[in-house]
Amino acid sequence: MATKSIKVVFLGGVGEIGKNMTAIEYGEDIIVIDCGMSFPTTEMPGVDMVIPDCSYLKENVKRIRGFVITHGHEDHIGAIPLILKDINVPVYATKLTLALIEHKLIEQNLDRYTLKTVEYGSKIRLGCMEVEFIKVSHSITGAVALSITTPKGIVFHTGDYKIDFTPVDSTRMDLIELAKVGERGVLLMLGESTNVEREGYSMSERKVGEALDKIFAANIKKRIIIATFASNVNRLQQIIDLAKKYKRHVAMHGRSMENISEMAKKIGELKTKEEFIPINKIKDYPDERMIILCTGSQGEPMSALTKMTSDNSKIKITKNDTIIISSSPIPGNEKMVYSLINNLYRKGAEVIYSALQEVHVSGHACKEELKTMLSLIKPTYFIPVHGEYRHLKQHAQLAELLGIHPTHIYVPDLGDVVEVGKGGLKKINQVRAGATLIDGVDMGGDFNLILRDRRHLAEDGVLIPIVVTEHGLVAEEPELMARGFTCGDDILNEAKKIVYSQMNTNLGKSVDDQKVAIRRALKKFLFTRCKQSPMILPIIIEH
Amino acid sequence: MATKSIKVVFLGGVGEIGKNMTAIEYGEDIIVIDCGMSFPTTEMPGVDMVIPDCSYLKENVKRIRGFVITHGHEDHIGAIPLILKDINVPVYATKLTLALIEHKLIEQNLDRYTLKTVEYGSKIRLGCMEVEFIKVSHSITGAVALSITTPKGIVFHTGDYKIDFTPVDSTRMDLIELAKVGERGVLLMLGESTNVEREGYSMSERKVGEALDKIFAANIKKRIIIATFASNVNRLQQIIDLAKKYKRHVAMHGRSMENISEMAKKIGELKTKEEFIPINKIKDYPDERMIILCTGSQGEPMSALTKMTSDNSKIKITKNDTIIISSSPIPGNEKMVYSLINNLYRKGAEVIYSALQEVHVSGHACKEELKTMLSLIKPTYFIPVHGEYRHLKQHAQLAELLGIHPTHIYVPDLGDVVEVGKGGLKKINQVRAGATLIDGVDMGGDFNLILRDRRHLAEDGVLIPIVVTEHGLVAEEPELMARGFTCGDDILNEAKKIVYSQMNTNLGKSVDDQKVAIRRALKKFLFTRCKQSPMILPIIIEH
Repeated sequence: MATKSIKVVFLGGVGEIGKNMTAIEYGEDIIVIDCGMSFPTTEMPGVDMVIPDCSYLKENVKRIRGFVITHGHEDHIGAIPLILKDINVPVYATKLTLALIEHKLIEQNLDRYTLKTVEYGSKIRLGCMEVEFIKVSHSITGAVALSITTPKGIVFHTGDYKIDFTPVDSTRMDLIELAKVGERGVLLMLGESTNVEREGYSMSERKVGEALDKIFAANIKKRIIIATFASNVNRLQQIIDLAKKYKRHVAMHGRSMENISEMAKKIGELKTKEEFIPINKIKDYPDERMIILCTGSQGEPMSALTKMTSDNSKIKITKNDTIIISSSPIPGNEKMVYSLINNLYRKGAEVIYSALQEVHVSGHACKEELKTMLSLIKPTYFIPVHGEYRHLKQHAQLAELLGIHPTHIYVPDLGDVVEVGKGGLKKINQVRAGATLIDGVDMGGDFNLILRDRRHLAEDGVLIPIVVTEHGLVAEEPELMARGFTCGDDILNEAKKIVYSQMNTNLGKSVDDQKVAIRRALKKFLFTRCKQSPMILPIIIEH
Repeated sequence: MATKSIKVVFLGGVGEIGKNMTAIEYGEDIIVIDCGMSFPTTEMPGVDMVIPDCSYLKENVKRIRGFVITHGHEDHIGAIPLILKDINVPVYATKLTLALIEHKLIEQNLDRYTLKTVEYGSKIRLGCMEVEFIKVSHSITGAVALSITTPKGIVFHTGDYKIDFTPVDSTRMDLIELAKVGERGVLLMLGESTNVEREGYSMSERKVGEALDKIFAANIKKRIIIATFASNVNRLQQIIDLAKKYKRHVAMHGRSMENISEMAKKIGELKTKEEFIPINKIKDYPDERMIILCTGSQGEPMSALTKMTSDNSKIKITKNDTIIISSSPIPGNEKMVYSLINNLYRKGAEVIYSALQEVHVSGHACKEELKTMLSLIKPTYFIPVHGEYRHLKQHAQLAELLGIHPTHIYVPDLGDVVEVGKGGLKKINQVRAGATLIDGVDMGGDFNLILRDRRHLAEDGVLIPIVVTEHGLVAEEPELMARGFTCGDDILNEAKKIVYSQMNTNLGKSVDDQKVAIRRALKKFLFTRCKQSPMILPIIIEH
């Protein structure tokens, strides 16, 4: 069935931000890169998470040699517990990434799985392919790019990265190593595109440490609370080091902050000899001796920091708090983040966030870094990945500017199967791909219908006319039940009369026809009278 | 009732962005500054618009001498058609502002209203107060600050403004005029706070013209489509001037673009001798001779630009289009705007937007401009307005930095009545204020209940168990109707059995008790089995 050429199947992360997943195939072998989730948009009310539609992988499950994971962010590992249930193959990743994955699997009560730790620079063989894990800098420890040697040439996947010449963990991303990969000759490069809109270079993670140092120095008498992503272990390390410098104790607050910091300490990624102060003991220490590191930097309603703004919180925000939100709002979260900041100000605290001071840096390569990567790897063919369509398009334009011929560049869409072979780079097929929606359980194939109904219910509410008939005649006055919809009693009474008269005009017709007539008449009436269009669900019961 | 002192009542625009409205009172006289609307948040599904709760004004309608409007943006004029129905007093504003208001009133079929045009620098008497209209620069023509002379001193309201030393319409905001107001002695200043988070100065509107000029020069052979706010007449003027320079015709597309450009032309604010090309005639002109100016810069689903991306649009986007989005996404609109940009790229067009080039400047004063204003006006008392809580707080800190004593500064909340008198600046009362929600019609006082139901319906859908009883016994198998909710047939069948058994265990109880029992049992069952919590609305009908 499968001919001998390199194929790339795009199952996530292209034309969208999030739920990254790409399959690399050669002959009978498939490697899957990343297995991420994304958060629902406002168009998906009630949905908990979105994961890639894996129909294609399920059909080809016998050919899959393993998942290789570039790093431990949710958009790269979040779908693993759900997808491993159907596709139980080994998962390869570096130490912290694997610890985060295992934590998820245990939470979900999975017990049959194979996780294999890899080191930076190590190589593994998966079928006819060999995968090398190359350290890159990113806003999480343990991030790697992948150099995949196939019988027909090297496929290089950047993963998510930035170029940080002064990283916190001091083992920097080795540009010479990348140059060597380029020197060997890369047939196809898949490059992340998140920050292609930004000119210049991203700032070093160390800049955050410098900004925080100044804030610590200026707030000697105050309690300092810092919200950041728990998985940014390098940032936690900088804060812990500053705590030592300024003779403060550290308390971790919020589930993922507590879990990940302990986990990172255990595997040696977070280095400190101090014990963290349990959150119920912080009252034993004066404000000026404490730092609270917590979750909630995206304004999430159930997070530690948001809870602190409620009146019955155990940790009370006071005028003596300086609160640092060390992150940028993820697109779509702006309102939540700013609402949190407003509420912290209302409690009297001083609040410092990325719009005011450099307390956050991006983990993604900006334009000049993308150019550096393309220039080091010098691929024959290039496919931009990890981005909405405009990012991919702009990254393609950038590659063209650097001398890659337009016919050697392909801007992919979800489900594309792209072949690199004698005929160059071309799309040869389209497979089923897209979103699987999880609302407690898998919402199944009809999710669009369900979401359409939910959006209708959200916009306009529901009106339920209840009619009881006896020998086809209306036995008693029709009732109307409404939720999420109001129009006043006068209009409701008129609406009842309309239901009654529709029953009479449609005497002897089928119940279904009677329902259609009621729905149509009420819809017209309500729109005319109060410009509203509730979902109308007539119930007719024959005595 | 009212004692003789200056009072300020905050009915909108503080602690929030939008629906600006402030009342200034002295003795028996009330002046209302601005009457704006805001767009609903995602917490308000189905709501069309949000306007200030005007209970206080309605109670005091006889004391109101007029509305004075600072400029014609929706958040300053949008509520006028609705509120004028109850509070029919004269509305004072400059030419373009008043034309925009009148257009709204005609659309809403209002015919009893009094609109009075004022000139820059002119003064009007309203009761015991005199209002002077002072030209300021903003992203709409006709913007003014207000200097209100009361028997006890001057209240100065900045309106929305920026300081533009090289404005497009060449009658610049007169700093000397502001200095003179300051020289006379301002008792209280109300200052807008929107951009207080931004360091430095806002860029001049002319910068947009320069950026567009370069884009025009680089796209000589292509059709140029520019989406911007129709009300930014100065920007339209710059584009029309560039069209002349590059020998292109201009077509206006989209309802508000067509209306406002015609209106601005008629009153002389938009200066051109050329006729705009009707949109159905653009095919008669070659691409390189056309500019299409259109609505849709916020990615609004029904706007001209968004419609152009649909397959059955009359105006087809091609590779020969360069599309300029001359605006920034308003917070909350990011996803819509970026989705539009992605779709334009998919059609093959080149897209230029504010993240890539300086094709937009803000209309609001940044930090240094706010300092300039405070330094020119030198008020005794200061109240920051127009902003979320954090903006107001930061603006207050800025004023303190410039030497205003903290006790002379007040950060207001909605409904606050603040007095400036012998006792200094203090809150003396709290009146009803907040939001009135419009969903076709006024949603009334219960809107929180309705919205809560809508959000529940949106998140989880609705499940309607229908039970018919005969002499209290279940007559036939219960039915279940579901919308926006699914859990598979097996679970639904089990759910039916639960309804049946609940009816049997609750024989002889009241219908209400039976409903509660069904709701409780189903809720528990569904959450356990499929982690879902639909709204459950049991219907029990006795034969």
